[in-house]
Amino acid sequence: MHPRITGSTRIYGLIGDPIKSAKSPMLLNRLFAEAQSDAVCIALQVGTGGLADFVRGMRAVGNLAGLLVTMPHKQSMLDIVDVLHPTARQVGAINVVRCERDGRWVGAVFDGSGCVQGMQRHGVTLLGKSVLLVGAGGSGRAIAFAVAAAGARSLTISDLDPRRALELAQQVAKEGPCTAYAGLADPAGHDIVINATPLGMNPDDPMPLDAQRLDPATVVVDIITRSEPTALLLEAQSRGCQTLDGQPMHLGQALLALSFLGFEDIERRYWAGL
Amino acid sequence: MHPRITGSTRIYGLIGDPIKSAKSPMLLNRLFAEAQSDAVCIALQVGTGGLADFVRGMRAVGNLAGLLVTMPHKQSMLDIVDVLHPTARQVGAINVVRCERDGRWVGAVFDGSGCVQGMQRHGVTLLGKSVLLVGAGGSGRAIAFAVAAAGARSLTISDLDPRRALELAQQVAKEGPCTAYAGLADPAGHDIVINATPLGMNPDDPMPLDAQRLDPATVVVDIITRSEPTALLLEAQSRGCQTLDGQPMHLGQALLALSFLGFEDIERRYWAGL
Repeated sequence: MHPRITGSTRIYGLIGDPIKSAKSPMLLNRLFAEAQSDAVCIALQVGTGGLADFVRGMRAVGNLAGLLVTMPHKQSMLDIVDVLHPTARQVGAINVVRCERDGRWVGAVFDGSGCVQGMQRHGVTLLGKSVLLVGAGGSGRAIAFAVAAAGARSLTISDLDPRRALELAQQVAKEGPCTAYAGLADPAGHDIVINATPLGMNPDDPMPLDAQRLDPATVVVDIITRSEPTALLLEAQSRGCQTLDGQPMHLGQALLALSFLGFEDIERRYWAGL
Repeated sequence: MHPRITGSTRIYGLIGDPIKSAKSPMLLNRLFAEAQSDAVCIALQVGTGGLADFVRGMRAVGNLAGLLVTMPHKQSMLDIVDVLHPTARQVGAINVVRCERDGRWVGAVFDGSGCVQGMQRHGVTLLGKSVLLVGAGGSGRAIAFAVAAAGARSLTISDLDPRRALELAQQVAKEGPCTAYAGLADPAGHDIVINATPLGMNPDDPMPLDAQRLDPATVVVDIITRSEPTALLLEAQSRGCQTLDGQPMHLGQALLALSFLGFEDIERRYWAGL
């Protein structure tokens, strides 16, 4: 199903660069059409240098109702919005902007809670678990705080830049009570392992972690959204691990973003319909 | 049919204010979907004060492929584009902008040729005809030049502001060989009468011309696009006149704009399918 676009349709732009392989427009437009919402999501390719002009221009569009924000704008958008949702301040990134009727833009981030929700919807709970998170970049930061907030017992964060891993671990630890460390990308002894690096997007990427040491009881989550499973997921499956690709997180964050944008009914109906 | 929107979809924005009753998005999106073109038209409400910011912002959008321009921006857009199509310079207005790959914006106007094409498709030819045009505003100007170029013998232009009518008549006369006058809104003795004023959009508007003096042999064209016929068209029909509402012009200019934007196949297929 595709949306019917009229002069009164509310516009939601997905901005990023590159944007060609973005999946949000198809997902959101299907949900909009099913809910008979007079809204449409379009992808807009905007590079780093163009963001400031783009934002000033978008503020002149009366029927722009929101923006979904992807790379490379998730951090830059922090300084642009007028109001920060608490999670956006904590994570230091924005993946959705709600354009209020009074002209104010409110920024929030649901990458982390979307990942946790996606895991929970597939029966993977975090309460009391030991989690290894590989990658302390934008997505990794969001996931770290959400994993801790969902009740993980411990969180080990690994990054090519050990200082970045340590800083994130310290910030997460401050929120308590989850114990957070910086450590190696060694999955042994963890209940859940999450790849939040881009490694695996290209077929010849190295493994993001030492997959030889995966235990069959460990759940392996790879947030990369591709039609083919990543090498990490294939290896984990061959070892008998439960695996989740990026789809549940992508769906989870999209539904949370829609709720934030005022489409609570879409999120409610989606889960009720499963 | 509605378009399928992905990350690679080319964006065509219709800008104007007000924009709620705009019909172009539905028409273009149906044509895009039928032609399986990876393109979408969305309406963007942009007021006069926001145009400069909006344009600067849109130049940062890599997959913006064009703009359709409606009130109140048709004249202001003249100073914004990088290249003017000859008709746009002549008419002094733009209703479509093509965003070239090299970053240049090319502006053109098809309101006039769209009106003439719409008439021709309904069997109303202009060659050798005497035409009364009421309204020398943006649409009127475009129609005046196109009517003359289509071979009308004479063109009488009427406007509430007689100076505006006279100026337009002089400009049209310069293009020759059509004889152009400024005159009264009196339909008597004309083969074709065209209302290019907004009178008739609201039910309690006065008549744009002296409809009591309409001859049954006169063709009456009202460029207003509404689901209900205007009072002028109802009166003309009751007198036995052939009438055309704004739909043929709207369709004609949309197809010409699509050709200009690179969708020659859509225009060709549309007329072939009739």
